[in-house]
Amino acid sequence: MPEIAHVEVETELQRFFAAARLRASDYGHHYVALWDALEHASSGGKRVRPALVLAAYSGLGGKDMSLAVPLAVSFELLHTAFVIHDDVIDRDLHRRGVANVAGRFTERALAHGADDTQTGAWATTAAILAGDLALSEAHRALALLPLDREQRGRLLDLLDRAVFVSAAGELADVTNTVSKHPLSVEDVTSTLEQKTAVYSFEAPLMAGAVLAEASAEAIEVLGRFGRLVGVAFQLTDDILGVFGDPSRTGKSVLTDLREGKQTALISYAGATSLWPAIAPFVGKNDLTENEAGEARALLRECGALQSTDELAIDHARRAVEALDTPAIPDILRNTLTQLADTSVNRTR
Amino acid sequence: MPEIAHVEVETELQRFFAAARLRASDYGHHYVALWDALEHASSGGKRVRPALVLAAYSGLGGKDMSLAVPLAVSFELLHTAFVIHDDVIDRDLHRRGVANVAGRFTERALAHGADDTQTGAWATTAAILAGDLALSEAHRALALLPLDREQRGRLLDLLDRAVFVSAAGELADVTNTVSKHPLSVEDVTSTLEQKTAVYSFEAPLMAGAVLAEASAEAIEVLGRFGRLVGVAFQLTDDILGVFGDPSRTGKSVLTDLREGKQTALISYAGATSLWPAIAPFVGKNDLTENEAGEARALLRECGALQSTDELAIDHARRAVEALDTPAIPDILRNTLTQLADTSVNRTR
Repeated sequence: MPEIAHVEVETELQRFFAAARLRASDYGHHYVALWDALEHASSGGKRVRPALVLAAYSGLGGKDMSLAVPLAVSFELLHTAFVIHDDVIDRDLHRRGVANVAGRFTERALAHGADDTQTGAWATTAAILAGDLALSEAHRALALLPLDREQRGRLLDLLDRAVFVSAAGELADVTNTVSKHPLSVEDVTSTLEQKTAVYSFEAPLMAGAVLAEASAEAIEVLGRFGRLVGVAFQLTDDILGVFGDPSRTGKSVLTDLREGKQTALISYAGATSLWPAIAPFVGKNDLTENEAGEARALLRECGALQSTDELAIDHARRAVEALDTPAIPDILRNTLTQLADTSVNRTR
Repeated sequence: MPEIAHVEVETELQRFFAAARLRASDYGHHYVALWDALEHASSGGKRVRPALVLAAYSGLGGKDMSLAVPLAVSFELLHTAFVIHDDVIDRDLHRRGVANVAGRFTERALAHGADDTQTGAWATTAAILAGDLALSEAHRALALLPLDREQRGRLLDLLDRAVFVSAAGELADVTNTVSKHPLSVEDVTSTLEQKTAVYSFEAPLMAGAVLAEASAEAIEVLGRFGRLVGVAFQLTDDILGVFGDPSRTGKSVLTDLREGKQTALISYAGATSLWPAIAPFVGKNDLTENEAGEARALLRECGALQSTDELAIDHARRAVEALDTPAIPDILRNTLTQLADTSVNRTR
């Protein structure tokens, strides 16, 4: 994916945050700290969504980076907003081992002599507001693009769908937790598609294509590719969440099991004769390393690991197949095929 | 304020929610319930912000309701978003005595057999998402307006300022709680201006004026009027929060005292010799009716009630003075002068 464009996205984000911080300084040091926390939350990621916007845009003949970069920034800030609000929902004070917005404001509140209730309020307030500010700028960056009415409308519709469907997926993810039985594989994959694949893959790719004034077919194909590859990524993430190497993924292999997360692994396992042996480990708050080892052995033995792997590979394969049309130029097809490979071939 | 236009705003909001609900039905009954809860949260209010948009627009010669109504809806949904997220911050499950978004999803979670932790997650998730959806539509309604680039940019800047300044005010409101001493009257009024006056009064009035292509002076004057009258409203609200008639205001007269809310009443009282007698009642979680009666008597005796009343009246008076220019047509001046009267003369 184009490296120079990445630099432009970073520069644009830095410019935005520097301006916001300056403006915030009129409203006191806490508000400046909130913007610092928001910038921190937006940094350190892989900038997958900007890369997809720019890959689709350039790959379909787009040349005007003064349009593509703000569009890329819009989807990155949408992601930042979702991540921050997701952490509020999960009551997390950390992300990737570092204090997140709520974590930073917890420390700040304590340093200012807040009691427990006040500290909780500072943390929640900061995280909700930071998410709202990122979400607002995601909309604004797109709305400010100097486009004609029709093209702007199509981009606004893509952003609208991204927000609408992600909210549905996020809600489903939480309401699914009361299910006493493993969900069907179909329910698991449709929640993954809604919660992540649409806003992270489908929408950025389609938006880049719309901005490049690509054909209706090219736009449609990129949308399909995005949904499929997005699900392949998430299925692989769920595998890595149980079978991965924490030193490489940066993610504990106990959390998903302890939370009883409804993944495809669990769906498959639930339909096998080994489920009664596996079930006690799923959602066990105090699961030990040894118990996790047993659970992993059983998830292998019952075929759940292999089935999930195959499901991910099947999604990636169908994603690549979708690209098999002259509407997608060769260079773009190569870039996206590589992406599909990466979606399922990652460090375990 | 124009009644027919109000009907058009209601109709537009109903149309929006009906379409969203239909669309949500593809994503399961919980998501439909979320949209029901969001529509419920947006209804029952006085539609102050739409009324201000339309008053300024019509009062300055605007005729095209197909532009003004979506702009009015934008500011109403911004308000809905802030109210919903404010309730998450305050951990409220009710608003005006009825279950709010979180309250409705608490009931829903329990009906679906959720445990305590899950119920809390359903409630928080629903409220955060509902606010995000309302905020997104506030941006979208404005971004879709078929305007030229310059006018759209000015409206987007007003919306951006509304979000930016409200977030600063909301954060200050929460961080202020750790102050062991009453805040200065200046700090209290600037927080009121930031948290409420800018997005509820300044921005809707200025946006209506910008849409009507009013003179720079008219736009500026309406902004100043809005900030002042917004603060007058909030100061009066704070008086009613301690001295009001709950059967008329629908608001307990114990809550503000129990929470130790930093109002102008408390600021004034804090600077008098009676403060040591008042302080024990402020922030007392289990304050009784009798103790509240004592606190009220002391707040009168020390002059805090009168000073706060005078401060509100002074803001309303300066708001009306700001209108004293030929840039503001007589009819609009009359409407806004009435509004300024209402801001301080409400049922105690």
